[in-house]
Amino acid sequence: MEKERLILVTNDDSVNANGIHALVEVAQQFGRVVVVAPDKPQSGMGHAITINHPLRLTATSIFNGVEAYACSGTPVDCVKLGIYEVLHRKPDFVFSGINHGENSSTNVLYSGTMSAAIEGAMEGIPSIGFSLADFDAHADFSASQYFGAKIVQALIDAPISKSVCLNVNVPKLSQKEIKGIQVCKQAHAYWADRFERRKDQFGRDYFWLTGEFADVDQRPDTDLQALKNGYVSVVPTHFDLTSYETLQEMNNWNL
Amino acid sequence: MEKERLILVTNDDSVNANGIHALVEVAQQFGRVVVVAPDKPQSGMGHAITINHPLRLTATSIFNGVEAYACSGTPVDCVKLGIYEVLHRKPDFVFSGINHGENSSTNVLYSGTMSAAIEGAMEGIPSIGFSLADFDAHADFSASQYFGAKIVQALIDAPISKSVCLNVNVPKLSQKEIKGIQVCKQAHAYWADRFERRKDQFGRDYFWLTGEFADVDQRPDTDLQALKNGYVSVVPTHFDLTSYETLQEMNNWNL
Repeated sequence: MEKERLILVTNDDSVNANGIHALVEVAQQFGRVVVVAPDKPQSGMGHAITINHPLRLTATSIFNGVEAYACSGTPVDCVKLGIYEVLHRKPDFVFSGINHGENSSTNVLYSGTMSAAIEGAMEGIPSIGFSLADFDAHADFSASQYFGAKIVQALIDAPISKSVCLNVNVPKLSQKEIKGIQVCKQAHAYWADRFERRKDQFGRDYFWLTGEFADVDQRPDTDLQALKNGYVSVVPTHFDLTSYETLQEMNNWNL
Repeated sequence: MEKERLILVTNDDSVNANGIHALVEVAQQFGRVVVVAPDKPQSGMGHAITINHPLRLTATSIFNGVEAYACSGTPVDCVKLGIYEVLHRKPDFVFSGINHGENSSTNVLYSGTMSAAIEGAMEGIPSIGFSLADFDAHADFSASQYFGAKIVQALIDAPISKSVCLNVNVPKLSQKEIKGIQVCKQAHAYWADRFERRKDQFGRDYFWLTGEFADVDQRPDTDLQALKNGYVSVVPTHFDLTSYETLQEMNNWNL
């Protein structure tokens, strides 16, 4: 008999977000689930790790009988603590999300959700980050659960390199409206960042990050295009940031 | 006459670190320098941005006449605020560092220093992150300054794609001992993370992240190999995390 799969689930919206509860339900279809997720929102934390403070893990029963811990650190801390202090072995999968809000394109770099999945890949564990293009705390995760489970099954049926995780984004549409799943590239887009400058009670400036998203990628097969066209996007995502193209160009450098 | 270059300098060790003062001296050889850097250490912050707190900028005169601001946020926040609220235009370069400690291999993902350079590249600005393999607060940055200036000049002489930044690491050796500069790939290595588990005064566990670095890359032309052999490593680094190899494999997925 096949050994039961062990699945570590995390996110960046915290153990209290509806999205991670939706993801636990998906994960339970595939094996035994253990949750280690932040005790407070950690959106935008990217691949941050906590090195100047100690970390805490607190057992929580909010996942209806699933072994679960709220962690004082970042999503990447959760993956590390989950592997080395909770499970004491590498799980068969790391699932992260379901994020409240899209993590397509270059948002993968800012995203705590995706950084947790990338950390899983760095540990050589098949990992998937899931995000829904809806910031609402009470968003409908049913389509994300349906397509999420299909993608997990596809990864089980046809494994990819363990150094590569998947970035899954689901458009804000019903299951019926979604046209299907597209495997695609990370779009080249960026935030044209603007800050809102305000004055505090002492007349000193402070700044809130806002910004407009600028899609500058003309290629047809990007995640942003897939989402725009009503598809779930799946981008195979790795942690080798080397630009091999530029590496060749730099052969002519005189150093 | 050529317009004077404008260079934004940041780091993750804060405005108080010796490394950024050493980098300002290098940058001044190439143009007018403006510093926007964290007001406190931000090591390990990766590509984190601050979205749940307002940000502060405080003018500081500690850079001997150079326009400089201490920022309450992360290194990536510093780049965004520097461009949009201090300079009000894109600078000609973003330089980040000189980091106290190495940022080779997969450390690029955890590194606030490198994330600032990557953010520069996301804005289409030629950017370089500099790190010295010496954690000492009073490390000798003279070799880093010498080779750093050579690399800046090489980038000016033979520009690369503005979406690609450079990850420069300098071994802990004197200028004479260093054998030269090697353009190379990001090594595939990882932290075999261990946590030190301690008890607080109430008997509750807390954890400190420690860990051992495991180089699993057998390729000869990686940054780790270059450093080990006494060379300064330069890795062209981009923010497209798509695994194109896996993208092709996934053509056979039944979705």
